Amino acid sequence: MELKPYLHNAKYYETDQMAIVHHSNYIRWFEEARVDWMDQVGVPLTAIEARGIVIPVVSVSAKYKTMVRFGDDVSIRTQLTKYNGVRFFFHYEIRDVATGVLRTTGESEHCLMDDKGRIVNLKRRDPELHALFLSLVETPADGQ
Amino acid sequence: MELKPYLHNAKYYETDQMAIVHHSNYIRWFEEARVDWMDQVGVPLTAIEARGIVIPVVSVSAKYKTMVRFGDDVSIRTQLTKYNGVRFFFHYEIRDVATGVLRTTGESEHCLMDDKGRIVNLKRRDPELHALFLSLVETPADGQ
Amino acid sequence: MELKPYLHNAKYYETDQMAIVHHSNYIRWFEEARVDWMDQVGVPLTAIEARGIVIPVVSVSAKYKTMVRFGDDVSIRTQLTKYNGVRFFFHYEIRDVATGVLRTTGESEHCLMDDKGRIVNLKRRDPELHALFLSLVETPADGQ
Amino acid sequence: MELKPYLHNAKYYETDQMAIVHHSNYIRWFEEARVDWMDQVGVPLTAIEARGIVIPVVSVSAKYKTMVRFGDDVSIRTQLTKYNGVRFFFHYEIRDVATGVLRTTGESEHCLMDDKGRIVNLKRRDPELHALFLSLVETPADGQ
Repeated sequence: MELKPYLHNAKYYETDQMAIVHHSNYIRWFEEARVDWMDQVGVPLTAIEARGIVIPVVSVSAKYKTMVRFGDDVSIRTQLTKYNGVRFFFHYEIRDVATGVLRTTGESEHCLMDDKGRIVNLKRRDPELHALFLSLVETPADGQ
Repeated sequence: MELKPYLHNAKYYETDQMAIVHHSNYIRWFEEARVDWMDQVGVPLTAIEARGIVIPVVSVSAKYKTMVRFGDDVSIRTQLTKYNGVRFFFHYEIRDVATGVLRTTGESEHCLMDDKGRIVNLKRRDPELHALFLSLVETPADGQ
Repeated sequence: MELKPYLHNAKYYETDQMAIVHHSNYIRWFEEARVDWMDQVGVPLTAIEARGIVIPVVSVSAKYKTMVRFGDDVSIRTQLTKYNGVRFFFHYEIRDVATGVLRTTGESEHCLMDDKGRIVNLKRRDPELHALFLSLVETPADGQ
Repeated sequence: MELKPYLHNAKYYETDQMAIVHHSNYIRWFEEARVDWMDQVGVPLTAIEARGIVIPVVSVSAKYKTMVRFGDDVSIRTQLTKYNGVRFFFHYEIRDVATGVLRTTGESEHCLMDDKGRIVNLKRRDPELHALFLSLVETPADGQ
């Protein structure tokens, strides 16, 4: 499946008094990119949540290489790097659109939880969806 | 009832590249102050929501007089200025704690809605709570 | 000048526990739309700030008509409704893209300030830019 | 030096439609706690920035153990775990105040940068401040 990187234009309200995008916003951009990835693979988050399943974040990390400023266009490449029916691991790479310069890399880990707070095993609950996610696992880009 | 103003310390992540607090955050501070006001009058928002009632914002406004900067302590005075069983109107006054200088004034308007999206009339639904809110209505401070 | 409405897709992180977009975010969307408006009329905010001028918000207001939910596409129409060389007044209209239903209307008021905190009068400082803004003033849409 | 944990009350606008605090906000809470730590050790961030030095975030990570909900009081323990004159590493532990239950752990890494974007070596630039930071390095709590 050929996936398009997600595009984001850095907003004024995302800056802080260092005149750069505040570091917490990249964590939000990872989410934007992940939601877009889910749309592109045909499993929109709204459809998941409509089935009573939420996808909380178990862990997240970001490495800030170079700074994004107000008005910059960035592209975010999202990759599913590990998946076992219970846990998802995503890798993100944020680059400046104009120059291709790497801005930030990141990772996040997720589980599926039903409306009673129990972990959902997709392998048992939805083998078809499980097979789809398995087929989407990629080796992470090295972010250089 | 003697109510204490709500205190907030301006956060780094609340600043923008003008090196002042971004104007959208004062709208969030009004909410913080309103939630605290509800705690102080003995009707915490969590208790309201536990009864299946939410309190959406119908309108909000803010007038920015002087700027708040990172690290500043501000006090927020919240007043219920109008209430009729269906609609609440609040007035807010944000002042610098150190100098007393007025920073921002604001207003917000709210209704009560049940879990089916219907407007709740507190006069009928909970006359006791209705009487409490009526007793709390004050003339707004003039914010000078 | 024919201006295009600004498009925004409601983000997961913009929701709150009422499962609607938190009301403070519409204030941020007004800013996104205003920044886009400035780009479209050929006076990007970065160019203004590069000249040592900032455009603080003097007042802002919003009326919430119907709710925006995660994933919804909204269009924001921005209009300059008053301008006198010193103060700008904008009107905003947020509509659901799919249905055209009005979600929120708003207003904001701005001044220009130089790096010493002094009000800038564009009529004197930049008559050409002043003439441009004057030519852009429109009667506000009625938002019905 | 006996340092007090930083206290935060979870705000309504910090929740998302899972009815828990959005994961990006913990990254902001780490910053709040770090700023408070700097105040407590006598080196407020405003004083650093007044000298033309900023402290950008080089990397950040968080592990979400259990969820924080609207209105919860949490305490955040901040520890400087490594420091070499050029890089700072902090560890954070967020616990529920009422129960002591661990909510989130995290790490962040920082450098010092002057107003020309050059890395500042505190060992050379301010040996006294360097000695203070060295004396504050602690073994991280294990967050269990």
